Amino acid sequence: MDLYTYYRSTSSYRVRIALALKGLDYRAVPVNLIRDGGEHRQASYLALNPQGRVPTLTTDEGEQIIQSPAILEYIEERYPDVPLLPTDPLARARHRSVAALIGCDIHPLHNVAVLNRLRSLDVGEEQVMAWIAHWVGEGLKAVEALIGDEGYCFGEPGMADVYLLPQLYAARRFNVPLDSYSRILRVERLALAHPAFHTAHPDAQPDKPE
Amino acid sequence: MDLYTYYRSTSSYRVRIALALKGLDYRAVPVNLIRDGGEHRQASYLALNPQGRVPTLTTDEGEQIIQSPAILEYIEERYPDVPLLPTDPLARARHRSVAALIGCDIHPLHNVAVLNRLRSLDVGEEQVMAWIAHWVGEGLKAVEALIGDEGYCFGEPGMADVYLLPQLYAARRFNVPLDSYSRILRVERLALAHPAFHTAHPDAQPDKPE
Repeated sequence: MDLYTYYRSTSSYRVRIALALKGLDYRAVPVNLIRDGGEHRQASYLALNPQGRVPTLTTDEGEQIIQSPAILEYIEERYPDVPLLPTDPLARARHRSVAALIGCDIHPLHNVAVLNRLRSLDVGEEQVMAWIAHWVGEGLKAVEALIGDEGYCFGEPGMADVYLLPQLYAARRFNVPLDSYSRILRVERLALAHPAFHTAHPDAQPDKPE
Repeated sequence: MDLYTYYRSTSSYRVRIALALKGLDYRAVPVNLIRDGGEHRQASYLALNPQGRVPTLTTDEGEQIIQSPAILEYIEERYPDVPLLPTDPLARARHRSVAALIGCDIHPLHNVAVLNRLRSLDVGEEQVMAWIAHWVGEGLKAVEALIGDEGYCFGEPGMADVYLLPQLYAARRFNVPLDSYSRILRVERLALAHPAFHTAHPDAQPDKPE
C-alpha cells in the first residue's frame, strides 16, 4: 500500500494511526501542501485524487481510495486483525458517532482551505481563531459526553481514538483550551504513550520540516 | 425504531432514504429546528443527543445513535437485506468515498449553524451565497469524476446515492448551478422516479410547513 500523506494533515494522521495499530507496512508518499502552491493541486496528484486533498491510499492492487473515512473502513474490512471496531453493531455505532462528529462537524470547519476562504472574506485573524475555537470547543464538548470513563474512548484503542488524537493535535496547534475535558485528556495521555500513536504522530514523519 | 428528523435536514433525509430503500418501518419524531429557538436545543432533546443536532435514531432496544454516517452504517449492519453497500471491499470504498466527500467536505460547510456563524462575522448575504456555491461546486465536481457512467452512482442504488440526493436538494434550494454535472443529473433523474427516494423527500414529510 502507498499512503499519500502530509505530516500535519489531520486526516492523513488518522490513517497513519490505523495502519500502525494494525501493524501494516506501507510506503508513505509525502504530498507537500505548501511548496509550489501545493503538490496536491498538481495534475499528477489530481489524476489519483480528483478532489486534490490528502490522504489517498493506493491498494496492493494499484487502486486509489480517497477520503479518510472510506480508507479507514477499507483497511478495517480488508485487514481485520487488530480490529478498530468491536463486533456488536451498537458498539460499532458508538465509535462511528464520535468518528463522524469529529470528521464532519469539527475538522472540515478548520481545514486549511476553509480558513483561507474565510480570510478571503476579510474576516480578521482574531475572528478566524475564534471560529476555530468555537467549532472545536462545541464538538469536543459533545465528544466528552459520548465517550466512556475508562481506558481509551470506549476501552481498547479503536476507531473513535483514530479520529480523536489528530483532532487534539489540531486543537493544541490552534491553542484551543482543553482543560475542561477530563475524559478526552485521559484518552490523550494513554494514546501519547502508545507506540502506534507515537509512530503516526506528525512529529515522527520524515516530511516534517526541520 | 424512532427517527428524530426535520423535513429539510440534509442528514435526516439521508437516513430516511436508507430506511425506505430497505423497506424498514420506523416512527418519525419531528424536531423543529426553527420554532421556539429550535427544539434541538431543548434539554429533553439534548438528553438524547448531546450535540443537539438531527437526526438521532432510537434503536428497537431503546438506545440512541447520533450522526447520520454512524446511523447509516448501523442500519446497514443490523438490517442487511436490500444492501446499500456491495460485498467487495474496494466497491464498498467507492461508495464511502463519495459519501464522505459529501458528508465531510460539502454539507458541513453550509449547514444552518455554519451559515449563521458566518453572518455573525458581518459576512454579507451575497458572500454567504458565494460561500455555499463554492463548496458545493468544488465538491460536486469531484463527485462527478468519481461516479460511474450508468445507473445510479455505481449501478444499483446504494450508499453514495443516499448522500448525493439530499446534497442535490440542498444545492437546488441554494440555487447552485448543476448543469455541468451530467452523471450527477442522470442519478438525480433516476432517484426522483424511485418510490423510496420519493417517500424520503422533504416535500413528502408530515412536518413540512403548509
